[in-house]
Amino acid sequence: MAKTADLYFRADPWKIIEEGFDPSHARVSESVFSLANEAMGVRGYFDEGGTADSLRGAYTNGVYEIVPIGRSYRGIIDHTHFMIPTADWLMTGITLDGEQLDLGQVRFRDFRRELDMRAGTLTRSFVWETASGKTLRLTILRFLDMMHRERAYQRVTLEALNFSGEAGFCAGLTFDVRHEGYGKCFWQDPRAEAERGRLLLQSRTAASGQEVFAGALVSLPGSVVCETGGKTALLRCVLPLEAGRPVSVDKRAVILFTGETGGELWAHGLRALAESEAVSLDEAMEAQRAFWDAWWQTSDIRIEAADETVSEAVAAEQQGIRFCSFQLAQTYSGGSAGHNIGAKGMTGEAYNGHAFWDTESCCLPFYLFTNPEAARDLLLFRYNTLPGAIERAKMLDCKGACYPIATLNGEEACSLWQHASLQLQPGTAVAYGIWHYVRLTGDEDFLWRYGAEMLLQIARFLASRAARGNHTGQYGFYGVMGPDEFHMMVNNNAYTNYMGQRTLAFAAETLERMAGEMPEACAALMAKTALTREEIAHWRVIAEQMYIPRLESGLIEQHDGFFDLPHTEIDSVPVTDFPLYDHWSYDRIYRTDMIKQPDVLMMMYLYNSSFSTEEKRINYEFYEPRTIHESSLSPAIHSILAAELDRMGEAVRFFGYATRLDLDNYNRNTREGLHVTSIAMAWANIVYGFAGLRSDGDLLRFAPRLPPRWKRLCFSVMYRHRVIRAEMEAGQTRFRLEGGEALPVRIYDRDYTLTVEGLAIPRP
Amino acid sequence: MAKTADLYFRADPWKIIEEGFDPSHARVSESVFSLANEAMGVRGYFDEGGTADSLRGAYTNGVYEIVPIGRSYRGIIDHTHFMIPTADWLMTGITLDGEQLDLGQVRFRDFRRELDMRAGTLTRSFVWETASGKTLRLTILRFLDMMHRERAYQRVTLEALNFSGEAGFCAGLTFDVRHEGYGKCFWQDPRAEAERGRLLLQSRTAASGQEVFAGALVSLPGSVVCETGGKTALLRCVLPLEAGRPVSVDKRAVILFTGETGGELWAHGLRALAESEAVSLDEAMEAQRAFWDAWWQTSDIRIEAADETVSEAVAAEQQGIRFCSFQLAQTYSGGSAGHNIGAKGMTGEAYNGHAFWDTESCCLPFYLFTNPEAARDLLLFRYNTLPGAIERAKMLDCKGACYPIATLNGEEACSLWQHASLQLQPGTAVAYGIWHYVRLTGDEDFLWRYGAEMLLQIARFLASRAARGNHTGQYGFYGVMGPDEFHMMVNNNAYTNYMGQRTLAFAAETLERMAGEMPEACAALMAKTALTREEIAHWRVIAEQMYIPRLESGLIEQHDGFFDLPHTEIDSVPVTDFPLYDHWSYDRIYRTDMIKQPDVLMMMYLYNSSFSTEEKRINYEFYEPRTIHESSLSPAIHSILAAELDRMGEAVRFFGYATRLDLDNYNRNTREGLHVTSIAMAWANIVYGFAGLRSDGDLLRFAPRLPPRWKRLCFSVMYRHRVIRAEMEAGQTRFRLEGGEALPVRIYDRDYTLTVEGLAIPRP
Repeated sequence: MAKTADLYFRADPWKIIEEGFDPSHARVSESVFSLANEAMGVRGYFDEGGTADSLRGAYTNGVYEIVPIGRSYRGIIDHTHFMIPTADWLMTGITLDGEQLDLGQVRFRDFRRELDMRAGTLTRSFVWETASGKTLRLTILRFLDMMHRERAYQRVTLEALNFSGEAGFCAGLTFDVRHEGYGKCFWQDPRAEAERGRLLLQSRTAASGQEVFAGALVSLPGSVVCETGGKTALLRCVLPLEAGRPVSVDKRAVILFTGETGGELWAHGLRALAESEAVSLDEAMEAQRAFWDAWWQTSDIRIEAADETVSEAVAAEQQGIRFCSFQLAQTYSGGSAGHNIGAKGMTGEAYNGHAFWDTESCCLPFYLFTNPEAARDLLLFRYNTLPGAIERAKMLDCKGACYPIATLNGEEACSLWQHASLQLQPGTAVAYGIWHYVRLTGDEDFLWRYGAEMLLQIARFLASRAARGNHTGQYGFYGVMGPDEFHMMVNNNAYTNYMGQRTLAFAAETLERMAGEMPEACAALMAKTALTREEIAHWRVIAEQMYIPRLESGLIEQHDGFFDLPHTEIDSVPVTDFPLYDHWSYDRIYRTDMIKQPDVLMMMYLYNSSFSTEEKRINYEFYEPRTIHESSLSPAIHSILAAELDRMGEAVRFFGYATRLDLDNYNRNTREGLHVTSIAMAWANIVYGFAGLRSDGDLLRFAPRLPPRWKRLCFSVMYRHRVIRAEMEAGQTRFRLEGGEALPVRIYDRDYTLTVEGLAIPRP
Repeated sequence: MAKTADLYFRADPWKIIEEGFDPSHARVSESVFSLANEAMGVRGYFDEGGTADSLRGAYTNGVYEIVPIGRSYRGIIDHTHFMIPTADWLMTGITLDGEQLDLGQVRFRDFRRELDMRAGTLTRSFVWETASGKTLRLTILRFLDMMHRERAYQRVTLEALNFSGEAGFCAGLTFDVRHEGYGKCFWQDPRAEAERGRLLLQSRTAASGQEVFAGALVSLPGSVVCETGGKTALLRCVLPLEAGRPVSVDKRAVILFTGETGGELWAHGLRALAESEAVSLDEAMEAQRAFWDAWWQTSDIRIEAADETVSEAVAAEQQGIRFCSFQLAQTYSGGSAGHNIGAKGMTGEAYNGHAFWDTESCCLPFYLFTNPEAARDLLLFRYNTLPGAIERAKMLDCKGACYPIATLNGEEACSLWQHASLQLQPGTAVAYGIWHYVRLTGDEDFLWRYGAEMLLQIARFLASRAARGNHTGQYGFYGVMGPDEFHMMVNNNAYTNYMGQRTLAFAAETLERMAGEMPEACAALMAKTALTREEIAHWRVIAEQMYIPRLESGLIEQHDGFFDLPHTEIDSVPVTDFPLYDHWSYDRIYRTDMIKQPDVLMMMYLYNSSFSTEEKRINYEFYEPRTIHESSLSPAIHSILAAELDRMGEAVRFFGYATRLDLDNYNRNTREGLHVTSIAMAWANIVYGFAGLRSDGDLLRFAPRLPPRWKRLCFSVMYRHRVIRAEMEAGQTRFRLEGGEALPVRIYDRDYTLTVEGLAIPRP
């Protein structure tokens, strides 16, 4: 694996800073400078547009379009849905002496872009040098309100440096936005109004029939020309400029997507716009900073370099870690069970905004330990989309519920049947998420009200999909694709069988416990779902008789026949062959023992305490050298297991990649958007990897192993309404509770009781 | 398997007769009444068109259009090609008292359609009863010239039964023909001329750029109106009718597809049209009958019923056998190495006119024993398309040549990657075809000039695609789909490994022998293809170390893990679930031990003498009950093996299906076209099955086993410029040579010398 960092941004503990504008890097920067507030996301594109390479993407969570795809065989989807850009609320035009501001064309200097992760704002500034010799400093600020998620702000400040005169200014709002892949705009039937200080728009998608309201209030001086045309509303004016005296134009936008339509939505939009006037932009910015202050207070991870020689590298890591945390928190922070986390969040159109099983397997721990309510909301998304999963199971001739491999609305959206029909991991990941959430939060109310029903439908699906092997005599899943997507249509994939076994057992246990503890609710659920005790007993049988292909040594065969697959030395594959999907014939990928991402090791990460260290060691040693980490989730999981196995060199090497995946454009595709779900693993890499947190056992466990180049690592986790603060140093780790009752924990395999006084545990 | 016959046509030894017109059967009849002469094919559609359900398909061999399909992954095709209808030369319009002849609308009686397999003609007649009370008998004849393959004839005879008067008549020619699947006409830039007695058209396809000339001479009395418009040329006249005196309009058409374009093709068309006038329609019809007389002389299969009780059933079989032979012979009879045999010939648009590996594995024996020159031409098609196969291998990151799974022009046209990339059987089938052809004909000239080069490129492909198993330590093919298409992405498919082994060994043997016998040609070939002795030696190594998963009992595992697959009792699958592709979720088909068509048994059919009877028995007994015959090729192969294993009941049961597959619409899809390659297996079913012919050993072998319900079975095979005639009866079979030198043969495992005197061999 010869993926390399592409150092571009200046290191800074709290900011991402771009100095100077490199057009070849334009799209990568746009992705990195994305903002979001769960309800909306916007790439760091230039407000004023222009000819530089750009993906002008402003997105509204949950907004998508539907297109038909050719019907082929039963069980293969015949239509799909994908995130589309919604109203561009940043639309701005500036002219000076007849010259249009376009950083792809005009002369400019002192370009600087700054994402402030403590303020939650993005600022861009530069000095425009016109052909006529004038210089104008432009400073453009934007942020998305983390509390009032329908609100977004822009402030354009113009400072004439060497002249006094006038600039043409135009502030707009438009639904004339193109989905890049389809090369078209999906918005239709626009209603547009422009009046002094106010722009109003509403439009609807053709097939999904979703309606979005976009309004903006703009502070423009003097006389204003109001224009509407098609899907666009505009205000134009002439801005008087005086040398050395900055002039600002503030725009506040409201984007509403509520399920309302027509006049109802329009009226709601007008109200929301009016309500937004209660605070000034500066007040909103202050509130935003206060939000992020509070957030970092409990969620920040701090690292310090062991010495001067590594200070630069560690500073880059520090920046990277915060960038990951910031992006995750702004992408999703809960409060709506209608949202999930797209593989690229709302930072680009690759992966179509779809959420995958990454949510439960990779992102959930971050939320469980920083924002448990958000974790609950993520699981409620699955509850709300259970009807789609039940429908999907029927399409596949199965019972129960088959959660989709890729979705925005709960319907399967993946048009590749080999993934959509063969990958059973979304369902087992949801079950795992429920198990993990309830175990960590003790929220049994959730389990009885929502979890049990999801579990039973997932178990029902798995039971109908499992079959008894003719030779093994045991149950297994045939014709599947496990997490390692380099092998498909395999039988007895260890991960699928094991996760299926755990899911079936957990579902049975949950229903049985519910029958005892919540007999009425249980009876109602069983009646609603026509569930019988026999069916539950059958799940137990399948779980008990599930085939796990484990050798005596503890080595687990990834799937039937894996050990016979022709061997490929992964170092023999030329770097230029990566990514393999682009350079290898599609079928060729599937016939060697090369692995895309952890499969056996993935289950050992998820159910860590269920495997002995020796089992982890032997499987790590076998599978790691066969893994090419073509999934960006892969290195962090290897790093976590490497740390556990005291292979600190490898743990650090795999980690290097995790925190700065997008900042350094390791995968050479950050231009398409951020790897939002992958960067969730950067957090896990530190907390599970170097702090050795384990959350799948009876007690919360820690086993800190500080990488040598760090002097100190400080982090917090929230657990059962307490904040646990940890400060790791080479020789010891101090743990303390921020408040609340004492908490039993296990550290390095010894049990302790953690209190507000704290403990200092030396590294053994 | 509960497929049932749909008896519709009248039994007749030499004709297919439809009496009365059933609109619900219209498309099936259209398929059954298809005519062809290799260069052209035409469904039995109504000349006069109308509102009855119809696929108005007239096809020209080798004419196709190309369309792009979305690019997905490397090695998966991004465009495909498919047969499109060409000029409709039968276009006819008749009006009487303002009523337009349309059998979907008008009253008629005495409808009769008759395909005469001795004459090679199709005749349709009926009496039209107009609303005005007139009755007009129409008799419409058509045939495609088997000798002058650009020529086609139509004769429309009108006989006024109860009146004298006039009928409006229109004879046309049009490229305004719609491909049904795409719902559009692919012809453009037409040139059209109509003049007294002559219609001329030429048009071109948009993407493939193919140009076709269509001309017609029409004998119309009186004054004629000539019309051209768009892609159509028409002649209209008023036909005077006298009660009881039939009037005929003859049309002769010339369809030219030569690779010429523009004026050159037009001039060629005019010449060809003029040349066609050398013979009258009646003379052409006589010549046609003579052609078929001669053909039946050597290729007919005659059966006689054992007694009265089965006479009807046997008559149906007799008709069915002849129908199969007739369809095959008219679809392909050699003379052009640019043609192959589409799965549906030129009788419909399903399967896009594509040829599959059926050609070499199923059709070739028919030609080898009835028309060896045609067999040679079929193999030359593969030689001519070798460059496309070399290109395809590159797309798949392999070396050598990968023959396409579906093609008209040598390029891969199958858009399902799982078939196009995983099925290696086309290449091994071509190699088998070469081996079989050379073995039967002794045509070593072909082997040195064409066969060796194909073999080396196929072997090179296989060598680059094979890999050594990590556990087996032997070579095998990983990630393939064998003939049984119900299992994909499997490893060590027995058929693929075995055929690969034989192909590699035969290629090595051929090249080594060529080096000795044709040193210069061999050196030239090796230089041309950069072939080294080391490479040949490597083929030997792979062949010798090929893994064939054979148990001690002789049972061969279809592929790694097959024996562990969950078992499905095929009788437990409801009849309404067939075809499974339509009723089962696509992925579900792949995870049981149900088999679509013979796989292990297929190789035992092809290399019959390489397996002991015991091996065949044990594998037949294991695999047959797991096979659902979802491929129409399947029953015949099972019938042949069942006969060999003396399971005559099963042999007869499977055979029942073979001969009348399309006449009785067993698969309920004859409406889409005839199963042309499948019906080739009807011939093989008799000659290989009941006569026990084996052609893969050193000597030609026979082992006649007459089904009890037949009194006599007579057939001929051509072999090394001799005709062998066989007359099988219950107790004995008489063999004799029609002429030529004595021939050593093996009958029931004893060696004989066959002469013109003949032999009578009692059944042991």
